[in-house]
Parts: sequence; structure tokens; C-alpha cells
Amino acid sequence: MTTRRGLLTAAALLAASPAMAQEVVEKKVFEAGDFRTRGGASIPNTRIGYQTMGTLNAAGDNAVLICHFFSGNSHAFGRLQPGGPAGYWDAIIGPGKAIDTERYFVVSADTLVNVNVPDANTVTTGPASINPDTGRPWGMSFPVIAMRDFVEVQKRLLDSLGVKRLALVAGPSNGGLQSIEWAAAYPDFVQRAMPVIAADIDAWMQGWLDVWESPIRLDPNWREGDYYGQGREPPLRGLAEAWKVVTLQAVDRAFTGQFDRKLPEGQDPARRIGDRFAIEKWLDDRAMARAKTTDANSFLYMVRANQLFLNDYPGVQAALEGAARRWLVIPAPNDRVFVSDGTKQFIELLRKAGKQVEAAEVTGPMGHLNGVVGMAPVADRIRAFLAE
Amino acid sequence: MTTRRGLLTAAALLAASPAMAQEVVEKKVFEAGDFRTRGGASIPNTRIGYQTMGTLNAAGDNAVLICHFFSGNSHAFGRLQPGGPAGYWDAIIGPGKAIDTERYFVVSADTLVNVNVPDANTVTTGPASINPDTGRPWGMSFPVIAMRDFVEVQKRLLDSLGVKRLALVAGPSNGGLQSIEWAAAYPDFVQRAMPVIAADIDAWMQGWLDVWESPIRLDPNWREGDYYGQGREPPLRGLAEAWKVVTLQAVDRAFTGQFDRKLPEGQDPARRIGDRFAIEKWLDDRAMARAKTTDANSFLYMVRANQLFLNDYPGVQAALEGAARRWLVIPAPNDRVFVSDGTKQFIELLRKAGKQVEAAEVTGPMGHLNGVVGMAPVADRIRAFLAE
Repeated sequence: MTTRRGLLTAAALLAASPAMAQEVVEKKVFEAGDFRTRGGASIPNTRIGYQTMGTLNAAGDNAVLICHFFSGNSHAFGRLQPGGPAGYWDAIIGPGKAIDTERYFVVSADTLVNVNVPDANTVTTGPASINPDTGRPWGMSFPVIAMRDFVEVQKRLLDSLGVKRLALVAGPSNGGLQSIEWAAAYPDFVQRAMPVIAADIDAWMQGWLDVWESPIRLDPNWREGDYYGQGREPPLRGLAEAWKVVTLQAVDRAFTGQFDRKLPEGQDPARRIGDRFAIEKWLDDRAMARAKTTDANSFLYMVRANQLFLNDYPGVQAALEGAARRWLVIPAPNDRVFVSDGTKQFIELLRKAGKQVEAAEVTGPMGHLNGVVGMAPVADRIRAFLAE
Repeated sequence: MTTRRGLLTAAALLAASPAMAQEVVEKKVFEAGDFRTRGGASIPNTRIGYQTMGTLNAAGDNAVLICHFFSGNSHAFGRLQPGGPAGYWDAIIGPGKAIDTERYFVVSADTLVNVNVPDANTVTTGPASINPDTGRPWGMSFPVIAMRDFVEVQKRLLDSLGVKRLALVAGPSNGGLQSIEWAAAYPDFVQRAMPVIAADIDAWMQGWLDVWESPIRLDPNWREGDYYGQGREPPLRGLAEAWKVVTLQAVDRAFTGQFDRKLPEGQDPARRIGDRFAIEKWLDDRAMARAKTTDANSFLYMVRANQLFLNDYPGVQAALEGAARRWLVIPAPNDRVFVSDGTKQFIELLRKAGKQVEAAEVTGPMGHLNGVVGMAPVADRIRAFLAE
């Protein structure tokens, strides 16, 4: 068992988990072929990465789909190599765990337009992919992708694996939105939905997503998305500013309290306008590290996919009325992305739509990220939900 | 009486007020002379604008000081010309109102480094002012200003007016922070403090202030602050992005609900990646309008002043222990800038410090801005607090 004591960074909190098992998973590639988007465009040679654990039964109805968060990928459980870091939800997925891979066949896939383009363990199709018609990266000529398109590519993957029914679709944040979109799109295929730290994307959330992405467009290196290739610099500063907003909004005051009244060595912001406080330096460093491992155009497309949540429906209420029946909704009360008023309203909407709804909570200093790193305390609730 | 029906914009909500009076106030200039900052720098020819209503009594102890919000100025009450717009807190300040100018001498001043540089009714000293040593604008060579410096210049103004004691110091947001800083700096001079939509500036808030300002530094027109003068373009795009964050965070989901699922004419964001949703267009337009009437460098200095809240003290608890005794604290429960956990903690800290603390609330769809545009419902609480 690997432990990583003493590293109180969000990266470590994301990477570490109190896993007892050392399940190794294999990253695979699904060739989805030609894909027609909800917006009416065609994408040839569509491919996404995925991983599985457990065995599909003969009826094909013991499958679970896990959908990832905005900056995540399919690595929700297990380890990609022995001794490597565990997946982000490894605390609740594995042999004998809440989502028990001795009973369920668990699948998790990379989304289209995944931001982790430079990562060898992420396989996606998006603006950084080669457009076979031109032999060059798509850039901003890549078609708009909606949240529903994420679902449709995953559906093809599940069909190819022989899955006939999902006992559960679940995920945190953007993964929670995908779960809701799945439950609305395929009410009979989806037996249970468990959106974690997610709710409706209303205009206020669409505005925040715009705030997240705007620094990318301001960076002169962005060049309308045409920054790929030799001799060109990617818009790292703009992308880092974008990650800065996400990083800060995804944690809560209790977590950043460690930086209260602290100054980095040699910095004197009370006397020099260019000097920084400790929280600013932490955000700068963390955001630049994330910028170096992600792609700016993909960030813009991922934002748009989120803004197009449930875009096939006149509204969230209409979408939920026709959706799958059984829900376990898990917000974080100190979530600063999906604020508690919004998650409460979402649960009410589900009840008004006549669904069977349970609610739990994830708590802790991490705010929104409690739904990624703090799932162990709700493991029994998830186990019970699956047993019903 | 002027009414402005049908304009549901934040600007109109800020400008309009259900004022019954047509009190005209005169904008005056206070020459503060040479000013030494908390950071140890000297500023010659320091000047700020101010306005007053009511009459100071012989003892000089019936004065009230109103401090303005981040993007505001001294225009808290009355009208600068007959028929002109009323000040932002006109609903609670004036003859016979909660803060009764028939009993109190009410003063409100522009801060140092005020952002409204192009506005003829704002008088401030900051990075856009001329440095008399060079004959050119200070730019980023202007000394760092702390929240306490705002207080010290205002103290000189009050001394010059013959004020011996403040019956009340109050203000919303940044004005609430100034009120707290005043109560800590001059506990005997300040009889009562009323911070509205304000609490401590912890690391999380320092981080948000950094998020607000970062787009300015990304704009190539910013040029390290050297954008003044003929033939140079100010960093309008970066400044607009900065105001976009402020604008969105200062309202709540109920207000932006009017934009849910709406698209501007001719826009199709589900098919074109460059197209916009209605909320984005509203934010773009509103933010650019604010950018055109404000100064980018002053925004950076205003951010720093906020980050340096209570910077003379080892912490907020220490500052409050020595502070003035009587408090009325008025948060907004759906405030997304000063979140409710933080305002509750602040009230607890005041109580732990042995202060006499009352609390009220401002509610409504505007979130944080309820403390600017929604003060009428707490008028009686304020009147009673002043009568105690």
C-alpha cells in the first residue's frame, strides 16, 4: 500500500486515496468511427479511451458507468500500473467496495474534447486531434460538442461491450452532469443515476463557465486557437488563469485557511504592487502546472459542452420528467461551484417530476472537491442504493 | 420624483432608488496634502472628493461616515443636480430617513485609488494621477495603498470638518471593510459600526481578488501599467473581463434567471463555437460599459487595498478585540462574494471579542448587491441601532 503523507496539495488529495486494493486496470481505446454531433457536424475517426473492472453477466445488465469531472479522465478506479496512483473514486469502486467489481462490470471513459491532451493515458477526439481532411489539427474548426454528445459516444462504447442496461450511471461535477444527461436520454437503459456535486446549468453557471474560459481568449498566444505546431507557443498564461478560477472555486475557505496572512519568501505586497500573497503564489503555481498538462482549445470546447447541458430539452424540468426513475443525489453543502441553493432546487425538481430520490452529502474543507476526494463517508449509502 | 421603470439592468438598479426627497448635494474636494502611506511611501498633493448633508453640532459628535463599495464613489445620498440620479443608499440617508440628516451630519468621501477616474464627479489620487516629480501619470510606480490608508485620509477630512466623534461609520462591501478598519483603528472616535455585505478578507477572498484583477495583467495593452497618454490604447478587454467576474459574483442566480435558455439574435452556440449565450452577451456588454468608465491600474490598486484589509494586525480576532463596541452587521444570505459561512464567522468573532452585536439581513434576487440596492427593508433596524 502506497501512502503519501505530508503533501497537503490538491494534486496529492486528488491522487491519493485510502485504497486497500492494488487492482491494476488497462487503458483501452474505443474506435467509435464516424460520429454525427447533435449540432449536425460529422467527425471521422472518433476515438476515446476507457477502462473496465469486473465482468459483464450474460444478461448484460450488471454494468455501471462512471463519468469524469471537467479536468479528469477515465481513471476513476484501480491503478494503471502496480504501485501507481489510484483512480479518483477508488475509495468506492473495486472488489468488495461500495460499487463492488465482484458484482458489477464498471466502465469509465474519456470524454470527447478531454482537456488532458498531452497525457499519454488520455485518449480523446477534439480540437487538438488531426483533421483527416487537412492533415492538421482541427483547432477551432472542430465541431461544437454538447454534453449529449459525450453520452452518445459512451453509448456506442457500451453497445460494443455488450451492455444492455446500466445498473448505475454516476460521476462527480461534469460527470454528474453527464449522469443526468444519460438518465434523461435513456430512461429505460439507466436503472439508477447518482449525480455527485452537480445540478442544473442555469444562466448563472453558463456565465461562470464563460468566466473560466475568458483568460484563454485574452492571451495573445491563443491566436484564435491556431497555436499548434513547431515554433508556436501555446497560450499557457491564459490557460493558467483559467485553471486558477477553477482551482479556487473548487475548494472552500477551510482549505485555503492554511494560507491566511502568509507571505511567500521575499514577497512584500504591502510595499510592492507586483509582489504576491501566499494564496496567490499557490494558485499561480498550481494553475501553471495544470496549464502545462492540458490544452487550451479543449478547455473552450469542454466549457461549451457544459453550457449545452440538456440542450435537447426546453428546460431541466422537461428533461427530468422523462428521465430514469431512481436517483441518489450527493451535493457538498459548501460547494462554491454548484451552490447549495441550486442543488436543493435540483432535488426538488426531481421530486416534482415524480422520481424516487434519495439525497446524501459530502462534507469537508475541500468544498466542491469533496465530491471527488471525500466519497468514503457515503460509501454505505451508495452500497444501499445499489442494493435496493 | 424621477422613476425609471422597465430598465432591469444592474446599472438601473444601482442608480434608481425609491427616494421621496430631491436633496441636492455638492461635490467638494479635500486637499489632504502630503500623505505618508502605511507602506512608508510619500504621496504629495493628495486629494479626494466628498459630499455632506446635515449640520455638524457644536460638540462635533453627530457625524456619520459612509464608505463606498469597490466600484462606487462618495455619491451615497442625495442628487448631484436636481432631477439627477439619487445616491446608492439614498433609501436610508436623508431628511427623516433611517440615517436622518435632520439629526446627523453625514459625510461620504471618494477613496484613494478610486476606479472611476474618467468620471467628473469622482476626485481621487491614484496611479492615473500626475506624479508632480515627473509631470506624468504615476502608473504602477504609485505607492501601494492599504485599506487603512483609506481610513487615514478620511480621518484627515473629518478632522478638517471639525468632527470629534462618529455616531456611525457604515458602508456596503468594500465600504463595510472600511467600516471595520475604522472601528479597529479608532475605537474611541467610532461610536457605532455597521458593515453591510462584508466580513473578513481571508486567503480565499485574497485569491478571488486576484482572480478579479488577473485579466488586466493578461491584456497586451496593459503594458505593465504604462498605457496613459496619446496614441496608446488602455487595456479595455482585460478590464472588461475583470468587471465580468465582479458583475457575475455580485449577483445571484435568481437575478440571472431572466437569461436562462435564452440566445441573442443570430447566435447559435450549439453549432458555432464563437457564438454566445444571452447571459454571456449581457456580461460582455455590461462589463465593457464599466471598463470604459474606469481605470485598469486603479482596479489593481483597489484590489491590493482590499487584500491588505486589517494588515496592521496579526489577525481579524486581534483587530476586533480592540475595536469599537457597538455593531450592527448586515450580510446577504445569498451573497456569493462574502459567503454566508464567512459572515456568520465574522459575527461570532465580534461576539467572542465581547462586542455588543446585532445582526440583520438583506434579501432579494441580487445576492451581494442586495446590500447596495436593497437596504430599504432594514431601515427601521438602522434607525433603532442609531437610537440606542
